[in-house]
Amino acid sequence: MNPRVSAIEPSLIRAIAAKKKADSIDLGLGEPTLLPQQRFIEAAARWAAEFGVKYTVNAGDFGLRERIAAHYAYPGMNAGRNVVVTTGSQEAMYVAIKTMLDPAGEELLIVDPAFPAYAKMAQLEGIPYRHVHLREDDAYRYDVELILDAVDRATRMIVIASPANPTGRVLRDADARRLAEAPVWVLQDEIYRELTYVDDPGNVARYYPYTIAVNSLSKSNALTGMRIGWIIAPDDALDAMNKTHSYVTSTASAFGQRVAYEIFGEPGALSEQSAWYRAQHARVNAALDASGLRYVPIDGAFYACVKLPRGNDSLAAALDLVERRGVVAIPGRIFGDTLEGWLRLSWVAPIDQLEEGLHRIANC
Amino acid sequence: MNPRVSAIEPSLIRAIAAKKKADSIDLGLGEPTLLPQQRFIEAAARWAAEFGVKYTVNAGDFGLRERIAAHYAYPGMNAGRNVVVTTGSQEAMYVAIKTMLDPAGEELLIVDPAFPAYAKMAQLEGIPYRHVHLREDDAYRYDVELILDAVDRATRMIVIASPANPTGRVLRDADARRLAEAPVWVLQDEIYRELTYVDDPGNVARYYPYTIAVNSLSKSNALTGMRIGWIIAPDDALDAMNKTHSYVTSTASAFGQRVAYEIFGEPGALSEQSAWYRAQHARVNAALDASGLRYVPIDGAFYACVKLPRGNDSLAAALDLVERRGVVAIPGRIFGDTLEGWLRLSWVAPIDQLEEGLHRIANC
Repeated sequence: MNPRVSAIEPSLIRAIAAKKKADSIDLGLGEPTLLPQQRFIEAAARWAAEFGVKYTVNAGDFGLRERIAAHYAYPGMNAGRNVVVTTGSQEAMYVAIKTMLDPAGEELLIVDPAFPAYAKMAQLEGIPYRHVHLREDDAYRYDVELILDAVDRATRMIVIASPANPTGRVLRDADARRLAEAPVWVLQDEIYRELTYVDDPGNVARYYPYTIAVNSLSKSNALTGMRIGWIIAPDDALDAMNKTHSYVTSTASAFGQRVAYEIFGEPGALSEQSAWYRAQHARVNAALDASGLRYVPIDGAFYACVKLPRGNDSLAAALDLVERRGVVAIPGRIFGDTLEGWLRLSWVAPIDQLEEGLHRIANC
Repeated sequence: MNPRVSAIEPSLIRAIAAKKKADSIDLGLGEPTLLPQQRFIEAAARWAAEFGVKYTVNAGDFGLRERIAAHYAYPGMNAGRNVVVTTGSQEAMYVAIKTMLDPAGEELLIVDPAFPAYAKMAQLEGIPYRHVHLREDDAYRYDVELILDAVDRATRMIVIASPANPTGRVLRDADARRLAEAPVWVLQDEIYRELTYVDDPGNVARYYPYTIAVNSLSKSNALTGMRIGWIIAPDDALDAMNKTHSYVTSTASAFGQRVAYEIFGEPGALSEQSAWYRAQHARVNAALDASGLRYVPIDGAFYACVKLPRGNDSLAAALDLVERRGVVAIPGRIFGDTLEGWLRLSWVAPIDQLEEGLHRIANC
């Protein structure tokens, strides 16, 4: 057996979720509660009736890749050959990390608080990694100086999610420009890109040719289960990542690719659901203010991080909440030590559930 | 960059396919030419309209996993917990090889002629591997004595495809029983299971608890692009493989899983297209006999291996065929040295194209 697989600890998120009861308020969800745009699924079904559901080339249908590349129009990465379509952003991140780093000494720098899978992917591949911690007293703002200072001679790649899961913070445009001074690759997880509530969100790929941008239909279009993600990168890096992809999964679902082709073919379809999140975001801010809890400013995504009103043990608090108070919340510590003492709440559920959940947390 | 990615040589199949012209006879195809059963895609689209397309748990929808496990009913592996649903059989094979072998000394034994991806997956993971060669003078029959003799103290797993790509040979029931004497894991790629033309096909999982069986909807249901495969294995091994799977792709497409759920819910749907292959198989045998070419008996799958009428260089012959004679055929050498001097032809195209292709090959 591969000892690196055995060494990875089971997910704490799953352990918490397993304790959920039928009447629990679930603020642990990591996926939209909206329904997807059915017209695109119907269009793909009609396409399947006519043409079947055949293999695409490994990197994905070229028409889709051209549409994706043109939509984002990152300089030097705006052609179909700059895109590989993957099984969700999970495979995109996995393939990028696995391909771009030499386990014999090239290090991944993870900007914490971070989605725990980044470190686990590196562990699985035997790739050394290190965390740089954004500061609690700075409300986990993306402090680019702090990130750049953490780069050392072994660092090969910085992984950064913006908008961020779990904090909801967003790298600003000026920050993205500044990150272009990094002497290493930047892997930006853009999965919450369409859910942004600031005027100047930053995308490193706009300014820096050594960027790998990852995204998917999961959050923007409520298609978590369609498993369509993509990597946008410069040619050479992309060709190497495509090689890895071709042995890991061969290709992404051609049916899902067709759904994506339809979405990218209709102006505005990718951001059609953004209005709901903006309206919910306003309600969520009001509810957070009313709760009296300390929270991280929500620049993007659909999470709110709230500080425990008492104590600092987020795992104990989350277990107490799910077992005794009927609220599922994710303990901050799983996103890195820097978020210990906080809970991550998702706010895709109806607002009255969030309000009741916040009330119970404030009294825990 | 990961040096193991750079070290993998580009696919020769792709190099040949790239030379195909508009009027070429394509005997290189690795996927069905039939259309899939549209009623299952429509059913999944209706389900999506009602419930959305959400994440399933990592291992896949439990109802689907129960149906798959019950359908195959392998002893000790017949419950939902014995199944992980994957992005095609490619991810299934990748996850099985990556998880079950320790790169520090556990060796994969590949039964050649074999699909080249098995060795490349091992290369990508730094897993040592060795080939055991079935014998040309035995028409590449699965000679279990020869395979068992090749197992040594470093061997941890045997990978065997039956029905086989490229040879079309099938492990017989008695052979499968005999393989249960292997002191190592057996990974059986069963992707062509529904396309079998002998009375006593063998499935090692029927007899041997240390078996990992991999399959998909790709060939049986003409759904190569749906990317739904699965692993059937004993609990402990399956849990470890599911962990790897959860970091590689998280989950398989929920839409594709629903298509599979519908297929496994309708008796006979999985083998509905088998009749077409049986009829085509009879026509193919007649065409091969008429061609005068030497060929490997076709027990299963949709390939025919034919011996070059002159010379032994299968790559040169395949290049000559595609460039000068308008026939795409795959050189045997890419499936291992033991198949040098042969060509692999697929016979999913109309029979007159196969006949014309055989005629041109016989005269090359």
